[in-house]
Parts: sequence; structure tokens; C-alpha cells
Amino acid sequence: MAKSIRVGLVGVGNNASAMVQGVHFYSKDEARLSLVNQHHGILFPRLCGYDIGDISFSCAFDVDDRKIGLDLGEAIWSPPNNYPRVVTEEIKTKAQVMAAPVLDGVPEFLTEAISISSHSQVPDDAVDDALARCTEQIRSTGTTVLVNFLPSGSDLATSFFARAAALAGSAYINCTPTPAVHSPEIHALFAECRVPLLGDDLESHFGSSLLHRTLLQALEQRGLEITHSHQINMGGNTDFKNLTHRGNHKKRSKMAALGFVAQSDRVNILPSGGFVPGLEDRKVAYILIEGLGWLGSHVTIDLKLQVQDSSNAAGVVVDLVRIAQAGVDRGIAGNLAMPYYFKRPLSAKPNTADALQAVREFDQAMRGQ
Amino acid sequence: MAKSIRVGLVGVGNNASAMVQGVHFYSKDEARLSLVNQHHGILFPRLCGYDIGDISFSCAFDVDDRKIGLDLGEAIWSPPNNYPRVVTEEIKTKAQVMAAPVLDGVPEFLTEAISISSHSQVPDDAVDDALARCTEQIRSTGTTVLVNFLPSGSDLATSFFARAAALAGSAYINCTPTPAVHSPEIHALFAECRVPLLGDDLESHFGSSLLHRTLLQALEQRGLEITHSHQINMGGNTDFKNLTHRGNHKKRSKMAALGFVAQSDRVNILPSGGFVPGLEDRKVAYILIEGLGWLGSHVTIDLKLQVQDSSNAAGVVVDLVRIAQAGVDRGIAGNLAMPYYFKRPLSAKPNTADALQAVREFDQAMRGQ
Amino acid sequence: MAKSIRVGLVGVGNNASAMVQGVHFYSKDEARLSLVNQHHGILFPRLCGYDIGDISFSCAFDVDDRKIGLDLGEAIWSPPNNYPRVVTEEIKTKAQVMAAPVLDGVPEFLTEAISISSHSQVPDDAVDDALARCTEQIRSTGTTVLVNFLPSGSDLATSFFARAAALAGSAYINCTPTPAVHSPEIHALFAECRVPLLGDDLESHFGSSLLHRTLLQALEQRGLEITHSHQINMGGNTDFKNLTHRGNHKKRSKMAALGFVAQSDRVNILPSGGFVPGLEDRKVAYILIEGLGWLGSHVTIDLKLQVQDSSNAAGVVVDLVRIAQAGVDRGIAGNLAMPYYFKRPLSAKPNTADALQAVREFDQAMRGQ
Amino acid sequence: MAKSIRVGLVGVGNNASAMVQGVHFYSKDEARLSLVNQHHGILFPRLCGYDIGDISFSCAFDVDDRKIGLDLGEAIWSPPNNYPRVVTEEIKTKAQVMAAPVLDGVPEFLTEAISISSHSQVPDDAVDDALARCTEQIRSTGTTVLVNFLPSGSDLATSFFARAAALAGSAYINCTPTPAVHSPEIHALFAECRVPLLGDDLESHFGSSLLHRTLLQALEQRGLEITHSHQINMGGNTDFKNLTHRGNHKKRSKMAALGFVAQSDRVNILPSGGFVPGLEDRKVAYILIEGLGWLGSHVTIDLKLQVQDSSNAAGVVVDLVRIAQAGVDRGIAGNLAMPYYFKRPLSAKPNTADALQAVREFDQAMRGQ
Repeated sequence: MAKSIRVGLVGVGNNASAMVQGVHFYSKDEARLSLVNQHHGILFPRLCGYDIGDISFSCAFDVDDRKIGLDLGEAIWSPPNNYPRVVTEEIKTKAQVMAAPVLDGVPEFLTEAISISSHSQVPDDAVDDALARCTEQIRSTGTTVLVNFLPSGSDLATSFFARAAALAGSAYINCTPTPAVHSPEIHALFAECRVPLLGDDLESHFGSSLLHRTLLQALEQRGLEITHSHQINMGGNTDFKNLTHRGNHKKRSKMAALGFVAQSDRVNILPSGGFVPGLEDRKVAYILIEGLGWLGSHVTIDLKLQVQDSSNAAGVVVDLVRIAQAGVDRGIAGNLAMPYYFKRPLSAKPNTADALQAVREFDQAMRGQ
Repeated sequence: MAKSIRVGLVGVGNNASAMVQGVHFYSKDEARLSLVNQHHGILFPRLCGYDIGDISFSCAFDVDDRKIGLDLGEAIWSPPNNYPRVVTEEIKTKAQVMAAPVLDGVPEFLTEAISISSHSQVPDDAVDDALARCTEQIRSTGTTVLVNFLPSGSDLATSFFARAAALAGSAYINCTPTPAVHSPEIHALFAECRVPLLGDDLESHFGSSLLHRTLLQALEQRGLEITHSHQINMGGNTDFKNLTHRGNHKKRSKMAALGFVAQSDRVNILPSGGFVPGLEDRKVAYILIEGLGWLGSHVTIDLKLQVQDSSNAAGVVVDLVRIAQAGVDRGIAGNLAMPYYFKRPLSAKPNTADALQAVREFDQAMRGQ
Repeated sequence: MAKSIRVGLVGVGNNASAMVQGVHFYSKDEARLSLVNQHHGILFPRLCGYDIGDISFSCAFDVDDRKIGLDLGEAIWSPPNNYPRVVTEEIKTKAQVMAAPVLDGVPEFLTEAISISSHSQVPDDAVDDALARCTEQIRSTGTTVLVNFLPSGSDLATSFFARAAALAGSAYINCTPTPAVHSPEIHALFAECRVPLLGDDLESHFGSSLLHRTLLQALEQRGLEITHSHQINMGGNTDFKNLTHRGNHKKRSKMAALGFVAQSDRVNILPSGGFVPGLEDRKVAYILIEGLGWLGSHVTIDLKLQVQDSSNAAGVVVDLVRIAQAGVDRGIAGNLAMPYYFKRPLSAKPNTADALQAVREFDQAMRGQ
Repeated sequence: MAKSIRVGLVGVGNNASAMVQGVHFYSKDEARLSLVNQHHGILFPRLCGYDIGDISFSCAFDVDDRKIGLDLGEAIWSPPNNYPRVVTEEIKTKAQVMAAPVLDGVPEFLTEAISISSHSQVPDDAVDDALARCTEQIRSTGTTVLVNFLPSGSDLATSFFARAAALAGSAYINCTPTPAVHSPEIHALFAECRVPLLGDDLESHFGSSLLHRTLLQALEQRGLEITHSHQINMGGNTDFKNLTHRGNHKKRSKMAALGFVAQSDRVNILPSGGFVPGLEDRKVAYILIEGLGWLGSHVTIDLKLQVQDSSNAAGVVVDLVRIAQAGVDRGIAGNLAMPYYFKRPLSAKPNTADALQAVREFDQAMRGQ
């Protein structure tokens, strides 16, 4: 079994920053040891035979000329990124950030935040060339797992990098709500190229969807009638700026993630109530649940959740890259279903305990050989 | 199979009020029908072959002379009860409230709230006579299920009525945190008398223990490290006045209800932060959970729960009396384990999904015959 | 002194419903009496010599053909209004709802909610005729105070009805954030026509702006440094649907209402985080304030406010119509400054105690004659 | 005018720690400068002609043998103190902690937390000797202002040190709810000894009383009817452990601090809902306010406040010691009324704006000479 995972990142934003800093941090011996007693948000210090320290970075793509050309370990500090600097020493990944093509346009509200590189401006008739070039970069760097960290609404780019990954023989993890696992064409391409595809829409490590679903299920399991519920999210990173304008896929994914009650017109989800710059990479979610019980008595739950937004993704993706690598090792082709980690898996979302059990069983199966 | 359940109540407080009003309300045809589409806190409109309308009241015990001698349907409006009047018409149960002996003393803080009947003042050497009398009342009224609604700290009285029930051939449901199922003597007596015993400490229909445990488990399942958590409860009924002074068994039960994390010194539970008369029978709980995730990032959950306190008990007890009756019908002797409904069942508390599944299986088994 | 106030309403939505129901309710003898001991949101049972029962309705304008032609007391029940029905008996005001011209267009998101009357579709070259017609209706019905309840963004219509009021010799209360008092032309017109003008942007009886400002001032007065604060509002009435799309004036008004700290880039206000239909006319606001104190220690305030949105306007407007009538009685011309009641008065917003004192002094002066 | 303030502390707990660390920190040049732009909880960088850097420590008293004999700058790190260590370098105050007599007994619940020195066990007939000794220590160290930081319930000790201060010619600031300013005997003694006395019960810099009062007043000023309100506080320092058992004076003081609505039976205050060790020196307060407005519509405010408990005292006491010193400089005798800083000043609590204005005027008067 290969003892190293070569990961490529599409989008060098806060999620990349959290992941690159974390992999660096948890690769040190003392951090490995501390994980035995303290979780720190890492459910599986070892998964499918891999430690977090077995992850390395092989390539990265972005459209911002302030990041392109830099080592990934340096590019993560470039604006508009605002994930906190936890690792103070220099990080060297040896992966150089390369130009990704702009395919979905740049919305007006992002033009001041982002400085588009001229290398990223690709005319329509040159998209095939760009695809060939990116495919070659993924292949030549020995990348085995490509992670799609693009913002919501990047529909064409999500598909572009899925094809590049499949053609280069790399697994692909689609963290965005744009359909990839749910796209029959993309799904078929990964089956044909015999590499694993994982998605769609990363479920945060500990986010508002998980919490909202958990509480609604608790009420249902007790026979309470839900009369009103809303969930509203706020943040100050580029993702929230983007979501405020391009939240359609996101809303659908978040409703799906609530499972059996999603169809109800009594539950309202606002993926982004607004861009609040002062929050930076923090995310604040407010949830209200109102129900009726015995003799029409009222039950009310008010909840506020506060998390570091991008930590939430990184903590999940380090599991997924290890699972994807195991899929590559075993030659799994097409959708590698891991509903524990996604808001919109291909099949219906199971309950959390069962979904977690499936991860443990996959882990055992992978270690068993 | 008998088509009626004859229920006796020990303690005619707010829980009794919620239960008597609710059984009256849900026995009407239109209410039965509405339950098909609307839950109203009733998980099982039909359970073990019984509707809520199959429940009737056969006897009741209390120490307050303003309640003794009245029909149970009238006694529930007597002070200090402050559960809202939902059923405005007159309720006739035909069960007359009888004098219960004062065995645990009356704490000073309750002396103004309660008006102890002279019939309840039983000297030590007359306790055996009182036991014989109460046993006879349970038996002669045809009571098949006796529900212990006494306040926390009524240790001797809980045991007294357990013995009366067993000797009278009635099932006994211990809603208090005082050990009954956990008392080897009481447990053995029910086995010997061949009647079912259920307990200890009713888990609220939808209360702070359930919610707190659900959230702590959600964090654990994601690998987050819990650094601090507290839960504080407030209410304005006699139970809260009592709990503020006699909360020991309660605290132990509530910690046990949190399951696998209960041993942690990072989790603090305050069963009663105080008696707040203005809340009347409402209960307000505040929960704070703080954890650490990826790279030491902070996760914070703030939650406020508001419920009608006594509705929470009634919604659970209507299930339990039907289960207990099925146990009587089938001759089940000793502990009838139903961990879904209790904070401190005899064996370890399973997860909610499994505990609920056990109820469904028992229901099927009972209907199968 | 005239003993009746003849009020005209522009916009027959939830605010009109709350006001018409309330005036009906508080005009009854028993309600008048109860106000002596219970406030019920009415700060001045008697103000400038007028009781709430002295208010009557003389005319009303709307664009929705389901309301036009009805008595105002009937039109308030028409969809999309969703203020609760508190007064169950029939209300007869004798004011018939008349067609208002559509001047600002109807945004796409409102086309399903509103059914525009053909009488309201006025071509550009017929606006002067419409103005003459509306002015005549205000005058002929004896209206002395016209209240502008139009939604945010109705800039042309706000100005149109201001002119109609001034020309008809009626006072005008501008409840919207659109500039009227702040418009030099409108201001001059009221001075010239010798009638009082009040505005701009009604401060809710008890709303998120008031509360947020109160808390920020409390921190400032203690020398704490505010590091981050946000306020987010949600509702389910048409106003919120509208605000989500046309919130510019509103945001400016709300920032101004926060007074001395409004310029800070540390305070973020989201007038509408989203339209949540399930809330109907309820409004939910979440406020977070984070500050630093002694030795850099943290101070955090989390607040949730829940109100009946349209009650908030009605409770304020019943004061303003009495003040405006007193202004009419005394021949006050142009801006009648009442900063206690507006988010954006003409001069700087004073502190609440001083602003309230100014109301009391005006009241005394008016009663003094 | 003397340019140095010699402060003595009674009780070397968390409040002392916050104050000693803060005075050290804010005495540095760079910290002084930073205060020009950033408040950090310091309302008056300069007050009555004194900077924070003009404060020095001259003596200190405690009963714990782990603190007695140490320099005050070292004793503040001793358990059970758990205020965070913000100043990492060594602090030398030259004030040595001396033995205070145990006069009010040591409650059972504190016996494990505190290690009583044998020097503190003073028999009844030796109290006069102890008083003479403490008076001499205050006098001989040149102490001009003595601050009483003892826990709630230390009634005899509060009075003991008041007498020692008066006899030694030192001003006395009573931070506890025990009556000192409200005690006619103590009051008279300070008048006679011609030194200033300040109290009773420190109002936190930014605490739950201030916030609760501010919100209740905001509702009153709008004419809303308050139907229910509660406030519950939790913490993990010794003060909270103590309050849970000896909260009587505290509750009375907190009710008084709420001013004009304190008499209402609709407002409930729980000074300590419980001792939650995991919070350490953090304090969490939950406040609920429910009211009725226009047409009986509901208004609900839910608030959570989180502060560093002992920072709250230190930020206020640094103002008071400067005010007290100015009183000493000018020979003010008896009660020096500063209602801005106390929950229970001698006369009725004015509104915050007026109380703050009085501080500014005193400041000007003191600087005017």
C-alpha cells in the first residue's frame, strides 16, 4: 500500500488555509501523540491505514494573481483569505499554485475582493486547451486525490476539474453543492476512467445543517408537531459574500440535508442571511424551532451556533482524502458513497449513527487487506 | 384482552392535572381523529392495543386537605397547582382523592404552599395500618396501574406506595428519581407478587436531559473535544420549589441520563437553578456547550429550551400506563424495562434510536397475540 | 379645540390592521379604564388633550383591487395581510378604500402577493390628474392627518401623497425611510401650506434599532471597547419580502438610529436577513455585541428580540396622530420635530430620556391652552 | 496634591488579582498611550488628577495561610484564585499579605477551598487586640484608601475593617452588599474620624444588574407592560460558591439596583443559580423579559451576558480609589456619594446618564483646585 497521499486543491481560499496549516501541525510527533487523548475535531487519527501526517500536497489551482506562482504554503496567507494564522512558522509544501481558468464569470460583488490573473482569462475556444493543460498538471505532479474547494455557483469550473481529475486518473472530492456525483455524465466518466468520485456538498464537521437536523429529528422521535422552524447563517469570508448572491444550489442542498422533514413548508433555511465582514472566517447560525406537545402546549428551542467556518471543512476533508486514497489503492471506480460526510449523497441521507457505522466498516475493510 | 386501563395516581399536582385533562380531551372522537395528522406530542395514538381513550382513573392519593375528598377531576384545580386550564368543561372521573400519609416530613419551604390534612399525619407505629388501608383502596377500586407522581425527595413515600401497589396486584410506574427499580427489595417484591414495575425517574417527553444528551452525542460523533458544558433549569411550580432544596437524587439521575459523558468533570448540571414563581408551570432551561475542533478552533452552542413542564410528564405517562397494562395482561413480573422513557433505567441507557425501536418491538409483540 | 381626529391611511397593510383594530378596541369604555393600570404598550393614554378613542378614520388608499371599494374595517382582513385578528366583531369605519396610483413600479417578487387594480395603473401623463383626484379625496373627507404606511422603496408614492396632503391642508406623517422631512422641496411645501410634517422612518415602539442602540450606549458609557456587533432581522410579512430586495434607505436609517457609533465599521446591520413566511407578522431580531474590558477581558452579549411587527408601528402612530392634530389645531407649519418617534429626525437623534422629555413638554404646552 | 495613592486590599482573591495585574499593566508607558484610542474598559484614563499608574499597593489582608507572608504580587497566583494570568512577568508590590481575623466563621462548603491560617483564628476576647493590630498596620504602611473585597456574607469582617480604616485615617470602599454606608454606626464613625466612606455593593463594570435595569427601563419608557422577567447568574469562582449559600444581602442589593421596578413581583433575580466550577472566573447571566404591547401583542427579549467576573470589579475600583483619594486630599468626611458605582448607594439610584454626569462634575471640581 502506498504510504503517502498526494493531494491537489482547486481553490486556495480559507478551506485550503485550514487544511494546509492543520496537516502541517498534526504531522508533528507531539501533535500525533496528543491526539490519542484529545480529539480536537479529529474523529479518526488513523483511517484506512493512513495518518494525517501521510497527507502531502502536490498541486493547487486558483484564479487570483496574488496566489498564482507561490508555494501553496505561502499562498494561503494572501488576501482575501482571513482564516486565522495558527501555524506561525513557514510552511513549505512544494506544490506551486497554478492558474485555473475563469469559467463561470466573476460576479460584480467579487471583483474588488479578487484580482483575476490574465492567465485565468480563457476564451471559449481555448477551454479544451486549458483542460488538457490542467489534466497534465494533475498527472505530472502525481496527484492521486483532487479536492474541489471552489465557491458555490462555480458550476462550469466544478465540472471542468472533475473531467481533468478523471482524465488524469485522480480521485475527485466535490465539496460544493454543484452536482457532480448527481451529474450522470460526470458519474459515468469516473466509472469509465476507473477512479473514485465523492460528493456532493460537504457536510460541515459541525455545522448548522447537522445541528438543525439532529434537533428536528429529536422532536419527531418524541411525537411533537413542528409548527415553525428557521435557520439563518452569517459569516464574513468570501464564501458568504458569494452565497448571499449565488445561494440556489446551497439552499437545495441544505434542505436535503435536513432529511425527512425537508419537504415541510414549516421549515425555512437561509444559507446566508448576510455578509458580515467583522466576523471574518467565523460563522454564526441562529436556529429557532417551535412545536406543539401534549394538549397543545408549546415547546420552543432557541439555538446559536458559532464555529470557525473553514475549520469545519478541513476536519472533514482530511478523512475524505484518506478514504479516496483507499479507493484509489483498491481501484474503486465511480461514486464512492460516504453519506456521513455529504449533505447530498447520491442515495437518501441515513441517520447519523448508521452513516458513521458505514465509515467504520469501510475503514475495517480497507485495513483488513 | 381487557379494553380499559384503571389508573391510580399518587400525588394530585400539575402532572395529574395535565394527565387528567389530556385523557379527557383526547378521548373525544374529533380529537382522536385529529391525532392521525397532527402529533401534538403523542407518539403512539395506539400502543399495545390501547387508545388514550381507554385510560380511566380509579383512585388518587394526596396529603393536601384541599384536595382530599374531591373528585380527581375537581381536585386538579386546587392550589398550589398552576397548570393551565385547557379543558374548560367539568371533568368527572369518579375517582375520589384519598389521604396519603406524610412519611418524609414536610420541608419548611413547602409549609405555606401545602395544607396538610390531619388524616395524613400518621405516627410511626401506625404506618402498617396506613399501608393496609391504602393497599385495600388500590385493590377495591380495581386499579391496575399506579403512577407515582410524588415530588423529588419523597423517598419513604415512594417505597410505601410501591409496596401498596405490589400487594394490591397493581403495576407501579415510578416517575421520581428515588430508587424503586434500583431498590433490590422493591424489585424483588414485584417479582414475587407477579406484577410489573417500571422506572426510575421519568425522562421528560422533551426535556433538557434529552436535548443536552443529544447535542453532546452529536459533538462526540464528530470527534470534537468538549471543554465545558452546563445546563441550568428554572421553573415556578411546587416541584421546582422542592428541587431547589432536595435535588440530590435528581442531579444523579440527570447525570446518568447524559450517558457516556456523564463522568466528565467538564459537564455541570443544575437541576434547579432556582424557583421562579412567575414562570408558573413553564420550565426554562439554558444549555451551553463549548468544544474544540480542527487546529484548536472553537465551537460554541447556546441553547434555550422552554416547555410546559407538566405536559412533558403526561405525554410520556400515557404511553407507560398502556405498556404497564399490557404487562399486567401478560403477567409480566418485576422490572419491565423501557429505557426510552426513563432517565435511570436498570441497565445502561441505550441510544435514542435503539430505545425507541425496543418500544416498537414491544408494541408489536403485545398486539401480535 | 376639535375633539375628533380624522385620520387617512396610505397603504392598507398590517400596520393599518393593527391600528384600526387597536383604535376600535381601546375606544371602548372598559378598555379605556384598564389602561389606567396596565400600559399595554400605550405610553400616553391621553396626549395633547386627546384620547385614543378620539381617533377616527376618514379615508384610505391602496393599489390592491381586493381592498379597493371596501370599508377600511373590512379591507384590513384581505390578503396578503397576516396581522392576527384580535377584534372578532365587525369594524365599521365609514372610510372606503380608494385606488392609489402605482408610481414606483411593482417589483417582480411582489407580483404574486399583490393584485394591482386597473384603477391604480396611471400613465406618466396622468399623474397630475391623479394628484388632483387624491388631494380632493383627502380634503372632501375632512382628513386632518394623513399617515404614510407605504413599504420601503416607494419613493415616488411617498412624495406624491406628501404633496396631496399639503395641498389638501392635512398633516403628513412619513413612516417610511424615504426622505420627506429630509427633502427640501417637501419640507418647503408644508411650510408654505402651513401644515405640519412629521418623519422620517418610524422608530418601532420597541424594535431592534432601539434595543441595539440602548445596549451599545450602555457599553460606551462604561468605557468598554466594542470590537464587533451585528443585528439581523427576519419576518414573514410583505414588508420583509420587500425589504429583502429594496433595503437601501432602510439600512441608512437604521445606522443613523444607532447614533454616535453608527459610523463604526465594527457594527453591521442587516435590516432583513430574509423573508421567512412561517413567521407571518412576527419579527425576530438577533443581536450580537462583543467588547473588550479591563486587561483585554471579553464581554459578550447575545440577544434575541421577538415582537409583533405591525403592533410596533401602531403603538407609535397613535401618539403621532394626536401630536400632529395638536399641530394642526395650533397652525404649526413645516417640520414638527419629534425625534423620540423617528429613526431619522431632521436634527441629530438625542438620547432617549431627553427625547421623551421633549414629548412630555410638548404635551404640557398643548394642554396649557 | 499627593501624586501617589496608597491602596490596601482586604481579601486577596480574584478581584485583587485583576486589580494588581491591571495596575501593573496600565502603568507602563505604551499601555498608557494605547488608552488614548482604545478604552479597554477604562472610562477615565485620568480621574481627579490621577492616572492609573499613580496607584500603588501598601498593605493587604487575607485568612488563607497560602497567601499570608507573600508579596501581594505573588499571593494573587495562589489557589483557589483562578483569574487568568494576563501579566506573565513577576510583579513586586512591596505590600506583604497580613493575617486577617476570621470573624464570620468559615462555612462548611468553603473549608476545602480555603486553608485558614492559625494567625487568623482569633478568640472573641481577642478581637479588640486584632483591631488595634490591623489599624496599626494600615496606618504604618501609609495606606490612604482601604478596599473591602471580602465575599458576600462577611458581615462582621466588613464592619471590623471599616473601623480599622476609620481609626487609621484611611478612606474605605465597601464593595460587598453588607451595609457599611447604610450602617448608621459606621457612617458616623467616618464622619467623626473625618475620612471618606464609599459603598455599598459595587456595581459591576458591565454586569447583569446594569444590563437588566437598562432593558427594563427601555420597556417602561415605551409604555410596555412587563409581565415576567428573570435574571440568573452562574460562575465558577469562590465568590459564586459562597453566593449560592449566603446570598441574602446580595439579592436585596440586586433588586435595589433595578430601581423603580424592583418592587414588582413580576421580576425575579437569582444572584447565583449555581456554582459551575468549569466556568472558573467567567460569569454567565441569562435574562428573560416578557411584556405586552399594543392590543396585547407579545414582546420577548432573551439575553445572555458573558464577562470575566473579576475584571468587572477591578475596572470600577480603579475609579473609586482615585475618587476616594481626592476625598482624602480635600478632607471629605463620611459618605462620599458616587451612585454610578454602587448597587445600593445611600440615596435612591438615579438614572445612568445623571449618575455618570455626577462623576464628571466631581472630577472637574477636584481638578479645578
